[in-house]
Amino acid sequence: MLDINIISYGLGSIGCQIAKFILEKEGLKIVGAIDVAKEKIGKNLSSVLELEKQLEISVSGNAEALFSNIGADLVIHATSSRLEEVYHQILGCLKAGLNVISTCEELSFPYSKHPSIASELDRQAKAKGVTILGTGINPGFLMDTLPIMLTSPCKEVKNIKVRRVMFSGNRRDSYQRKIGTSLSQDVFRKMINDEKITGHVGLFESISMIAAALRWKLSNIEVLPPEPIISENEVKTTCMTIKPGQVAGLKSVAYGLKGKEKVITLEFISHANVKRPYDEISIRGVPNIRQKIIGGIHGDIGTIAMAVNAIPKIMNAKPGLVTMIDLPILSATLHDMREHVKWRK
Amino acid sequence: MLDINIISYGLGSIGCQIAKFILEKEGLKIVGAIDVAKEKIGKNLSSVLELEKQLEISVSGNAEALFSNIGADLVIHATSSRLEEVYHQILGCLKAGLNVISTCEELSFPYSKHPSIASELDRQAKAKGVTILGTGINPGFLMDTLPIMLTSPCKEVKNIKVRRVMFSGNRRDSYQRKIGTSLSQDVFRKMINDEKITGHVGLFESISMIAAALRWKLSNIEVLPPEPIISENEVKTTCMTIKPGQVAGLKSVAYGLKGKEKVITLEFISHANVKRPYDEISIRGVPNIRQKIIGGIHGDIGTIAMAVNAIPKIMNAKPGLVTMIDLPILSATLHDMREHVKWRK
Repeated sequence: MLDINIISYGLGSIGCQIAKFILEKEGLKIVGAIDVAKEKIGKNLSSVLELEKQLEISVSGNAEALFSNIGADLVIHATSSRLEEVYHQILGCLKAGLNVISTCEELSFPYSKHPSIASELDRQAKAKGVTILGTGINPGFLMDTLPIMLTSPCKEVKNIKVRRVMFSGNRRDSYQRKIGTSLSQDVFRKMINDEKITGHVGLFESISMIAAALRWKLSNIEVLPPEPIISENEVKTTCMTIKPGQVAGLKSVAYGLKGKEKVITLEFISHANVKRPYDEISIRGVPNIRQKIIGGIHGDIGTIAMAVNAIPKIMNAKPGLVTMIDLPILSATLHDMREHVKWRK
Repeated sequence: MLDINIISYGLGSIGCQIAKFILEKEGLKIVGAIDVAKEKIGKNLSSVLELEKQLEISVSGNAEALFSNIGADLVIHATSSRLEEVYHQILGCLKAGLNVISTCEELSFPYSKHPSIASELDRQAKAKGVTILGTGINPGFLMDTLPIMLTSPCKEVKNIKVRRVMFSGNRRDSYQRKIGTSLSQDVFRKMINDEKITGHVGLFESISMIAAALRWKLSNIEVLPPEPIISENEVKTTCMTIKPGQVAGLKSVAYGLKGKEKVITLEFISHANVKRPYDEISIRGVPNIRQKIIGGIHGDIGTIAMAVNAIPKIMNAKPGLVTMIDLPILSATLHDMREHVKWRK
C-alpha cells in the first residue's frame, strides 16, 4: 500500500510541529515543504525542523513550481489566521488538485465573514475533485464542534456558554507575545487599538458554526476587544518575566445575539497566572448540560493532532469546502494512517 | 414544504416519549403507530400517549399491512434491546423502503456480536436506498461517540476509561425494576444467574465502536456480571422503598483488552443513593484528557432527543447500515426539522 503523500505548507512553530508529527506516523510521508521565509528557503527540511535524521527534502519558496514537480495527496497548510492573507496560497493548492487541511482560523467556518472566498474555494475544490477543511483545537473543536455535539442529547437549547481558561506561561514565545505578555497596560491598549494584538482569532467563526448547526438566525455577532489581565505578582514564564502591574495575558469575549439575548457566549481567557486551566461548556436547555475538561487541552498539541487526525476524513470526504460539522466525527488516528482511509483513487 | 412523515414503532415508555416529542416538533408528522401489546392495538394513539388532543391514528398490530397502506419517510423504532428479537421488525421496515432509527442497544454497533444480521440489514437497506441507525444516549453517545470524539485532539492514546454514575430514583418504574431496585441480595444474584437482570445493555457495543474508530485490534471484550449496590439506609424512590440491606441499584463493568492490558474500561453505576450524578471520560495519552459532565445527562430524555435529532442526518445519509461514527456530528434540531434536511427525493 502506498503512503499518503503530504506537502507541508508553512514552517512556523505549528507547521514545524505538524511536520514532525507526520514524520512519526506510519503511512504518511512528507514529499515537499514550502515556506515564504528567505532564511528557510533552500534549506534541508531536517535542519528547519532541527532533526538529526537527514530528509531528502529542501524547503521551496515557490509553491506552484513544487506542485508541478511533485505528486501528493494532501497539503497541510499552517501559515496565517486570516483567510484574506492565505486565500491565494490555498487556491494554488486546490488548482494543483491537492486536498487541503489548514489551521487558518478563519477557514474553519468562512461562510459568514468571507462568503465570496468560501464559494470560490468550494467551486475550485469541486472542479478538481478535492476537499478543503480548516481545523484546529480552537476554532475547530473546543468552542464549536464539541459544544454543538453536546447539544445532541437535548430536546431544547436556550443558550450556550463556552469558557476556555488557559495557562499561557509554557506556550511558545510567539504565542506569549501575541497575547501581550509582560506589556504595560498602556502599551497593551495601544496595540489593541492599532490591531497589533487581536486576541484569539476564531470566536466569530465558532459562533457562526454553532448558529449554523442549530439553525439559529442570529441578529448579530459581537466580538469585544480583548481586555488585559493584569498581574499582581511577579511571574516568570518560559521566556519572560512579568512584573506586578504588567499584562499577564488577556480575555476575549464574543456573543451570538438574537436581538438583545445572548444565545451564545464564548470567553477565551489566557494568561500566565492561571493555576487550574479548564474548558467548560454550559448548555441551558432540556436537559441542562454542564461539561468541563479539567486541566484543559494544550493548544499547540491539540491543533497539531486535529490537523493530522483529520487526514483520513478529508481523504474520504466528498469534494468541496467542508467544515467540522460536515464530517464524521474525528478521532485519534492510531497505528497506520492508511487503515483509516477508504481509498477513492 | 411537506412534513417528514414518521411511523412510531413501539409504544413502551421510550417509544411513547419519542412520539410525544415528535408531535411537538415543527416539520415532523406521525402518520402511523405500531405496537405488539394487545391492549394497545386498535386504540387511538392519543389515548396510548395520554394526550388530550385527539389524533387520527389508531395503533396497528400489523406492521406489514400498515406499511403497504401508508407512505412514510422514516420509522422510529423502540421495542427491545436485543437485536435478535427486533431483527425481523427492522427488516420489515427496510423492505418497505423506510429509513429506520432504532433505540435497540445492540444495533448501535452490531458488527462484532451480530455480523450476519448487520450485513443482512446493510444489504437490504442498500437495496431499497434507505438508511438504518441504532442510537440513544448510551450506547450512542456517552460511552462511545463522545469519548471517540474527545480523542481527536490526541497525538497518542494509551487507554480510555468512561464512568457513568446515574441517580435511578426518579427514573421510570420499569427502569428501576430492571436494575433490581429493592430486591434482596440473594434474589438479585439469582436473577443475574437466570439472566432476568442483565445490567446495562450496550457496553459490548460501545467498546466495539471505540475500538473500531481507533483501529485497536482487541483480543477480547469482557463484560462482567452486574454487581448489586447495597443500600445502608432506607431510601424512597418515585415508585418503591428500599430498606437497609436491599439492593439500591447496580454496577456494570466491561473491558476492552489487548492481551492483559485494559485499553478500554467502561463503568456503569446506577442506583437510588447517588447524590451527585456525573459522566466522566479519562483518556490517557498525549495529551491526557479528563472530561466530566457534572450532573450527568438524564437517560430517557437523552435517548429521546438523540433518536429525534438523528432524523435529518439519516435523511441525508448514504443508504445502508450506519453507526454514529459514520455520520456528521449530531446536534439539537431546533426550529423546523425540515430546515435540517437536504432533501434527496
